[in-house]
Parts: sequence; C-alpha cells; structure tokens
Amino acid sequence: MSFVDVIAKKRDGHALSRDDIQWFVRGVTATEIPDYQAAALLMAIVIRGMSDEETGWLTDAMLRSGDRVDLSDLPAIKVGKHSTGGVGDKVSIVVAPLAAACGVVVPKMSGRGLGHTGGTLDKLESIPGYRTGLTIDEFKQVLRRVGASIVGATSTLAPADKRLYALRDVTATIASIPLIAASVMSKKLAEGSDALVLDVKCGDGAFMKSDADARELARLMVAIGTEAGLRTEALITTMDAPLGRAVGNAVEIIECIETLKGRGPEDLVALAIAIAARMLVLAGLASEADAEAAARRTLASGAALEKMQQLIEAQGGDPRIVDDYRRLPQAARRCAIQAAHDGYVDRLRAELVGRASMALGAGRRRIDDPIDHAAGVLVLKAPGESVRAGEAVLELLYNDDEGIAEASALAYEAIRLSSVPPPSRPVIRGRVS
Amino acid sequence: MSFVDVIAKKRDGHALSRDDIQWFVRGVTATEIPDYQAAALLMAIVIRGMSDEETGWLTDAMLRSGDRVDLSDLPAIKVGKHSTGGVGDKVSIVVAPLAAACGVVVPKMSGRGLGHTGGTLDKLESIPGYRTGLTIDEFKQVLRRVGASIVGATSTLAPADKRLYALRDVTATIASIPLIAASVMSKKLAEGSDALVLDVKCGDGAFMKSDADARELARLMVAIGTEAGLRTEALITTMDAPLGRAVGNAVEIIECIETLKGRGPEDLVALAIAIAARMLVLAGLASEADAEAAARRTLASGAALEKMQQLIEAQGGDPRIVDDYRRLPQAARRCAIQAAHDGYVDRLRAELVGRASMALGAGRRRIDDPIDHAAGVLVLKAPGESVRAGEAVLELLYNDDEGIAEASALAYEAIRLSSVPPPSRPVIRGRVS
Repeated sequence: MSFVDVIAKKRDGHALSRDDIQWFVRGVTATEIPDYQAAALLMAIVIRGMSDEETGWLTDAMLRSGDRVDLSDLPAIKVGKHSTGGVGDKVSIVVAPLAAACGVVVPKMSGRGLGHTGGTLDKLESIPGYRTGLTIDEFKQVLRRVGASIVGATSTLAPADKRLYALRDVTATIASIPLIAASVMSKKLAEGSDALVLDVKCGDGAFMKSDADARELARLMVAIGTEAGLRTEALITTMDAPLGRAVGNAVEIIECIETLKGRGPEDLVALAIAIAARMLVLAGLASEADAEAAARRTLASGAALEKMQQLIEAQGGDPRIVDDYRRLPQAARRCAIQAAHDGYVDRLRAELVGRASMALGAGRRRIDDPIDHAAGVLVLKAPGESVRAGEAVLELLYNDDEGIAEASALAYEAIRLSSVPPPSRPVIRGRVS
Repeated sequence: MSFVDVIAKKRDGHALSRDDIQWFVRGVTATEIPDYQAAALLMAIVIRGMSDEETGWLTDAMLRSGDRVDLSDLPAIKVGKHSTGGVGDKVSIVVAPLAAACGVVVPKMSGRGLGHTGGTLDKLESIPGYRTGLTIDEFKQVLRRVGASIVGATSTLAPADKRLYALRDVTATIASIPLIAASVMSKKLAEGSDALVLDVKCGDGAFMKSDADARELARLMVAIGTEAGLRTEALITTMDAPLGRAVGNAVEIIECIETLKGRGPEDLVALAIAIAARMLVLAGLASEADAEAAARRTLASGAALEKMQQLIEAQGGDPRIVDDYRRLPQAARRCAIQAAHDGYVDRLRAELVGRASMALGAGRRRIDDPIDHAAGVLVLKAPGESVRAGEAVLELLYNDDEGIAEASALAYEAIRLSSVPPPSRPVIRGRVS
C-alpha cells in the first residue's frame, strides 16, 4: 500500500483509518510525504469532509507531533481562551488580565494576523519592549507571578499543524470545518490548560459566514476537547462589523486599556465579561448565576488594569503606555471616510474594514510580510448610530501613502447607510457546551 | 487575483474560465505554478468534474504547450490509432502495418507500460535494435518509405501533459474522465493526423471499469477531436481478460507476428480487423460495407507481414526476428499455474494477470523502473475453454526469481473456473462517432 491509496480513499468519499491519519501527520511532520501529496489529500478532505472520529484522530496525531506544555505544577485551575479570528477582535487582551484578576490562571498562546483578520501577538508587539517569544520556562514564571501570560506558540507545539496550515493557505484548503477544528484543538490541547473557552466568530468578517457553520465548528471543537479531557465551551458571537471602535495594532491596545479603565465600547465590554464569566465558571471560581457580576465587579475595581500593567512589565514591555498612549507607535497621517448622505449606519462590513486596515500596513497578506503597528482604522460611527452627510464614519491612520487608495476604496465600500435605524444585533448568539 | 482563487473556484464546484485553464497549463509548463497548487486543483477537478467546454479548453491549452507535428507534406490521408490501455493489448503493432498495407499512412506515437498495463514502446524495444526515439524528420522518412511508424512522443509534444501526468500518478488524480480525455486528445492532436480511431477499453483490466464510464470517455474524446477538426471515432471494447494469449513484451511481439502470418487468436484478429476497417473508412479508402473484408484480404495476402518487416528494418530493428523468434529475448524459467479442478475457464481477470506480469519484471511500478523484455505470462486456456484438474491455465515466464511468489499468487487469484461454459463475450461492444 502506498500513500496514494490513502489519498484515493478520501477522494472516493471513504473514511480514513486512525493509521492512515497517523501516517499522514507523521509523514508531513518528517517531510517524508511531499507537499503535492499532502495538498491532494487536503483538497479531498475539504470536499469530502471528515467524520467526528476522523477529526478527533487528526487532532490527536497533530497534538502528538510535538511537545505538550506541562503546567501541572501551577496550583490554580488553568483556563485557556481562543477566538477563531475577526476584525477588531482584541478580547483576549482584555480577558486575560480580567480573568487573572478574578483568580483564574490564563496561559494564552496566540497567533499573528493574516489577511483581513488581526492577531493578538501583532497587537501586543506594538507595546515597546513587549516580548511574545518567551521560552516555556519564562512563560510559566510569568503565569506564576502574574496569573496570565500571552505569548506565541513555540515551534515545538503541534509542528504538523504549522506545516499543514502553511500548505492550506496556498492551496485553497483553509475552508474546512474539520480541518479548522483539528488545527485549533491540537494547539489548544498542547497548551496544558484544564479548561477552554472558545469564541467562535460568525458573520461577514469571520471564517464562518453562516450561523449553521459556526455552530457546527463550535460543536465539533467542544466534542474534540471534551473527548480529550479538556473542559471546553464555546460562545457563538457576531462578527458582522468590527468589534469595538479600533482596528489595527497600537489603536487596539489603547482600546483594551480604555476598556480595562471602565471606558470600553459596549460590544467589547459585553463580550469580554461573558467570556471571563465562562472562564470563572469552568475554573470553579464562580457560580453560573454570579459569574458575570463577579467579572464586572473586578473590571470596575481596577484590578484587571493593574494585572494588565503587571503582564506587560513581566514580558519586557513598557508599562507606562497604560498612562501615556503617546509611548505607542503613532500614525503620521489620517484620512476621514465620510457619509454620502444623512442617515443611520446600517452596516460596517467587517471584512472590508479589515482589508482596508491591511492595505494601510496594519496587517499582512503573506505570513512573512512586515507590518506597521501604528496603522489602522478607527470607527467613529458604529452600526445603529446616526450620521450627517459629510461627517466622518471611519478614519484611516497610516504612515505609508502606498495603500491609501486601496484602503479608502475598501472603507467606502464597507459602509452601508439607511434611512431608518437598523435593528440591534446581539454580540452573543449562543453557547455550546 | 491569485491562483489560489482559481483552485477555490473549482473546489466550490464552479466552472473554470478559458483564462483560468490557460493560466494553469502555462504555469505548469513553465513550472511557475508549484506542484502542491497543481495537485490541489487536480483533486478538485477529479471530484467536482469539468464540463465538455472546460475539457476542450484544457485539451487545447495542453496541445499549445508544445510543438505540433506537421505531416501536411505527406500526400496520403494520415490516420492515428490510440488505445486507453489494457492487458495483452498489442493491437497497434498489428494494425499499423495492416492499415499501411491497405494504403493508409499511420503515424503512431505510443507510450510505455505503467502498473498492470503494458506499453507498445516496451514491446517493440524487445526487438533487437528497434529505435523508438526517432526525430520528427526520421519519423516522417519512415512514414514516407513504409507508410507506418511507431515511435515515442518527443518531449516537445504536449509537455504540459507530461508534467501533469507525472503529478497525477502520485496524487491519486488519474481517475477522471475529463483529465484522461484531455491528456489523450492533446497528444493525439499534436501528432498531425487527419483522422483518429480510439479503442476505449472497458472492464476489469481497463481504467474504465463500467460500460457507462467507457462510453462517456469515448463520447468526450470524439467530441473534443471533432471540435478540433480531427475526424474521430471510438470503439468500446472488452478488457475483462487479457487480449490474445500473450502478456509481456517479446511474447507479445511473437503473437503479433503470428497474427500477421494468419495464425492469430480470434479476439485479437477480430479487434485488429475492426480497427483497421474504421481507419480505412475514415481515410476514404473503403466503404462501410467493404472495409472489414478489405482488411481481411490484406491480412491474408501477407502484405501486412511484409509491412511489419519493413517497419522494423526502417526503425533499426532486426527483421530476421519475423522468421526466427529465438532472436528475441528468451526467459530462462517457466512456471505453470494449474487448474484446481476440472471445469471451464470462466474468467481470467486481466488486472491480476497484468500485475503478475509486472511482478515478473515485464512491467513497471514507477515510470523509471527497468523492465525484463523476456518476462511475461502466456494464456494456455482462455475463458470458455475446458480444462482438467492439474492442467496448466497460465504459464509464467521469467529470469529473476524475486517476483515469482507474488506473480504466482496473483495468477492463481486471476483464474475463476466454473462447471458450465461461460457465455461468450463480444470483443467489440459499440462504436461512438
């Protein structure tokens, strides 16, 4: 039997065996299976699908392709948090210090932005000195000292996923619920948490465009986590417009700190509180009934802001940025995107705003593109708000003129005005546990 | 737009545009599109399919990826012949001299064996001195002098097909009617014939296992040829058991010469006459009513045997093999595969016999494996014939002991006996024009 037979099996719509999947993952990790064979199998998986059982085996094989962080010597309950990615999605940077201030240990390994979605690591790296590349020992020291740490995954965690993800990105094989679930869960299982809250984004600016797809992805990830012994829950949340009022890197850090100071935008605060509350419940630190109130009390007390300052300092960043935003990278230029007529902001299409931000230099098209931490987009008028003709709806921040034509075209395209106020859309659509 | 968008289009079941397909074929030919992207698109094409229009564009783009042989200065009508490949399929080696003896010019570019199917070039190369690698000028000289020439395709004909075929072979993307049709027809259109007779094999030993698939492939190839201005017809023919009594290389050459001497096995003679007759009709050299009789008369006259001798000599081979088979490579060892009990040979599964022959060294697993021209399998009892317990049904010929265990297991597995004579199966199932 050759690996071509494994590819043919999935091509013809049959289920792969556990051995087939281990062969695939080991071969990819050891670069014994050539990229073209992996690409053919990935395309067959995208089109033919995989059962829950196959997806669980794939997750397990990718997990075992590398190391697993051992956090068992940390006394408290460790609860991870992961978002499937959106535009202006800065929730981790609010939730990690907030949940830590409530007594949860939050070991957070994050990713970088790609395409229209931003990445937590890029945002944190706009803080002068902040190191995302800690060793596992340094990571554990920060967790012990602060209760939360946000770092990049080391190259020894789920290396199969890294190689597969890079290949999926260039072969149109990203869009597969089983492949996305296995990719996320293999990394999350490698992080050594006791429990996990997933934020599954749904809408125009998310990978999952439909409610049904988002719920299916949430169900599958919760099933895989639970099967592997990780207490896992998912919230399905709206990603039609950018979350909060800032899209970019330094501008999102400012919005996070404002939120920790009690001045955050309503949607971001609601989501951060909801996720922190689920983390408290999974950690056994609050009851279902009291968890949200506990999170709100901690936010109001200033303890979460203090944690944020400790976290920045512990990872080598300049904690003075909390009180002086001018210490963050500043954009030299600004461009207002105006309303064409009087009315209400009906929609602010998240994907287009994200692409505008990328065009300004705040994001990357390819994984090794450099980014401009100062660039981004500010939302001056959010969906539901009224606006006058000529008033600015969005503001583009940039240093490099090169992307401004594309960015402004995208930004204008992102805006939909209406003559009546649109119905309000809830941030949280449901929970899967 | 990046090539990933083209892959995504087919992944989602949409039709590709002519530009998409040209981009693909040019990119593959110039090695600008990496193998992993080509593999992903090929898998999407295999699963999602292609319309006749897309397949025609693919054929045309592959044709234009290289040179086209110009045979316009040869005065007669040129008629090509192509088989989709089977076990013991030596028809080209009989038909080329036979049709040439009837006045048709037969410019035949053939392939090598792969897997369980044999290849005309390998068979001819068992003749000492026979050169399959002629230049286009030499090819035309032989055609002018003899009226038929059988050579390998030069590397400048449809180079895109060569690269795609090599990739399809290792990514489980061979099994696609549109891809097979485009691959065959791009090469056939490059050969410069005026007309073409296709032999579409159907059954256990063929790529097309079902009658419906064989008819669909035939319909599609005839449509593509006709659209491109090549008079094209297809016969659908049975490939359940090996064709004739010999499977291998030198042993098949002997069977071809026996056939040209008027002593060929019934199925091989019937198919060779039928195909030669269609070539005569397409060349305008015989009427529908008279073509088969004309071919039979020419065969009986010995003129086709003489053409064969001329063809061998013109391509550098030793023409004395026609009268002295000992000048061909000889196998040192023989092994009889016996009937387990009295009865009739009900089936002789072609694919298994082909794999047995490959295991003995007569075929190749990979395109660059060496082959033993003397090895092969002889059919002593064909389907429908009665046999006694212990009597030999098959005989294995070989020099190298290494493959004999595998080959004999496959050969025994290939034989099905029954207590009553099986119904006779016609060689020719239908015609598509």
